[in-house]
Amino acid sequence: MASIREVAKRAGVAACTVSRVMNGTASVAPETRKKIEYAMRELDYIPNELARGMFRQRAGIVAMLVPSIRHPFFASLADCIENQLFFRGYKLMLCSTSGETEREREYLGFLKSNIVDGIIMAVSSLDREEYAALEKPVVMLDYYVNDSIPLVTADHRMGGKLAAEEFIRNGCRLVLHLCDEEKADRVVSFESHLELERILGEHGIESRRISISWNSPDMEVYTEEARRLLREYPEADGVMAADMVAAAFVNAALESGKKVPGEFCAVAFDGTYAADMNGRELTSVVQPVEKMAEKVVEIMARLLEKQRPKETDVRIPVTLRYGKTT
Amino acid sequence: MASIREVAKRAGVAACTVSRVMNGTASVAPETRKKIEYAMRELDYIPNELARGMFRQRAGIVAMLVPSIRHPFFASLADCIENQLFFRGYKLMLCSTSGETEREREYLGFLKSNIVDGIIMAVSSLDREEYAALEKPVVMLDYYVNDSIPLVTADHRMGGKLAAEEFIRNGCRLVLHLCDEEKADRVVSFESHLELERILGEHGIESRRISISWNSPDMEVYTEEARRLLREYPEADGVMAADMVAAAFVNAALESGKKVPGEFCAVAFDGTYAADMNGRELTSVVQPVEKMAEKVVEIMARLLEKQRPKETDVRIPVTLRYGKTT
Repeated sequence: MASIREVAKRAGVAACTVSRVMNGTASVAPETRKKIEYAMRELDYIPNELARGMFRQRAGIVAMLVPSIRHPFFASLADCIENQLFFRGYKLMLCSTSGETEREREYLGFLKSNIVDGIIMAVSSLDREEYAALEKPVVMLDYYVNDSIPLVTADHRMGGKLAAEEFIRNGCRLVLHLCDEEKADRVVSFESHLELERILGEHGIESRRISISWNSPDMEVYTEEARRLLREYPEADGVMAADMVAAAFVNAALESGKKVPGEFCAVAFDGTYAADMNGRELTSVVQPVEKMAEKVVEIMARLLEKQRPKETDVRIPVTLRYGKTT
Repeated sequence: MASIREVAKRAGVAACTVSRVMNGTASVAPETRKKIEYAMRELDYIPNELARGMFRQRAGIVAMLVPSIRHPFFASLADCIENQLFFRGYKLMLCSTSGETEREREYLGFLKSNIVDGIIMAVSSLDREEYAALEKPVVMLDYYVNDSIPLVTADHRMGGKLAAEEFIRNGCRLVLHLCDEEKADRVVSFESHLELERILGEHGIESRRISISWNSPDMEVYTEEARRLLREYPEADGVMAADMVAAAFVNAALESGKKVPGEFCAVAFDGTYAADMNGRELTSVVQPVEKMAEKVVEIMARLLEKQRPKETDVRIPVTLRYGKTT
């Protein structure tokens, strides 16, 4: 491979000047820059990826922050986003915050420097200002920062409505729904819970919000918790929860001798592969991960090309998929 | 923030020389280098991460190639590895090859350049030579390349033995086991199948190897396939397969009216959270993902510090976890 010295010789400049062009650290006359770029192409000079990244001001990497790689929803979404990015010539750097605020901040501090071209945020435990200060293309998945940072999300309000209607159809009287209450005022996804409560309330159906942390998916923990809650609310006849939690409730309800459906209904929220593993597919509100991934990457690609995104607040419709639990 | 010119001025050298030190593109006298480094520290000069990466010859990133982010085993392992790397100050770049050889090659081409410090390979569809040529720290997870590239893996032979013994205890007569036959001669994990066959054979128990691609986990596909295989082998009374596939077999067996266990047994291989979602926890050979992650990252950290790893062929014992399917 050609060296930087050969490039300099061919271009008729000093090696230092080539360095400067590559680094972007100092101004170089446009025609000199052109000469150097021409010489590089002629000699098929390939600096290493880092140098090329600096040269093009592009690393070719987009980061995505998730609360957990293992969580079926984030795993599915990351899988689709990785795929979409790959076809556009970008690589994915997947970072897991374990749901911890400090870890999210540390990752962002690392990413803020020039290591990645853009950041996709599937977590949002920091303040608006910290996201607004990122100074590089950002797409948020569940949190509104400001009008200039695009937000792509499933239509959670619609999800809450579809679930509520299903509980009404099934004649439920007391529906438990599991959420992360700390995030009530922050995240778009919480709208599903508000809408569920609103519609059930209008129909005189009781509902109970139950706070649960779901960042470290563990069936044993979930099942134990489901058993406990079914003892605490023996009259509960419906549950809305993330796939694995909903599966745990179905298992616990069956264990306690309840008929599912009939005496107990479950609507899983997310509808990933985890909602199907039960042998009795869970009725699910399906988040359209492929469409979401497509939209996220389409917007990110435009931002990376310094174009304005066509939309900055995208809510993608969800669907209800019938399983064997309603 | 201080500029490169201020650093040069403070160090009493030309800006070009600072560039050269940062780029490592040309030799600079040691005392000049020291002067520059000192000036940088004094002025709190922070070049962007890319530049720093070049300067330190370290990006702070370790890549991991997996066949699928969604696959419960790889998701669990990646989650643990990310965690371990994070505590050592490294970030994970997770790349999914979708099980495609060309994509694996493209990723490696990208990573070969200086963008990451090391590579953890949980896929291995290329030739040994291609891995040997990577010229940066590599840890393999399921494929022996040569004595200088460390291999960390679960003890799959032991896994096959534990599963075989469990089928024997359960009085099985025909055991199906699902594997990716194309990889029979390549991957360490195939040893579980060979050992299962060997031990069952010694006990006069029949076994059938069935080839399946499991890179895109999809319960619907698996369940359809399980139904078909149970029709094709009506006398089958046991199955060993990856968690989700084993779960699909249990569902299909129950559907067809078989008692599980009793008339049909299942041993899931991996023992991730996916083996628990069934409400009838699957008896599982558990791959110790946390210990594997610890070992992988410990070895990678040593390689990154230019130290020899203490071990280069690590097989971590697996365990049998009893569930409700044997």
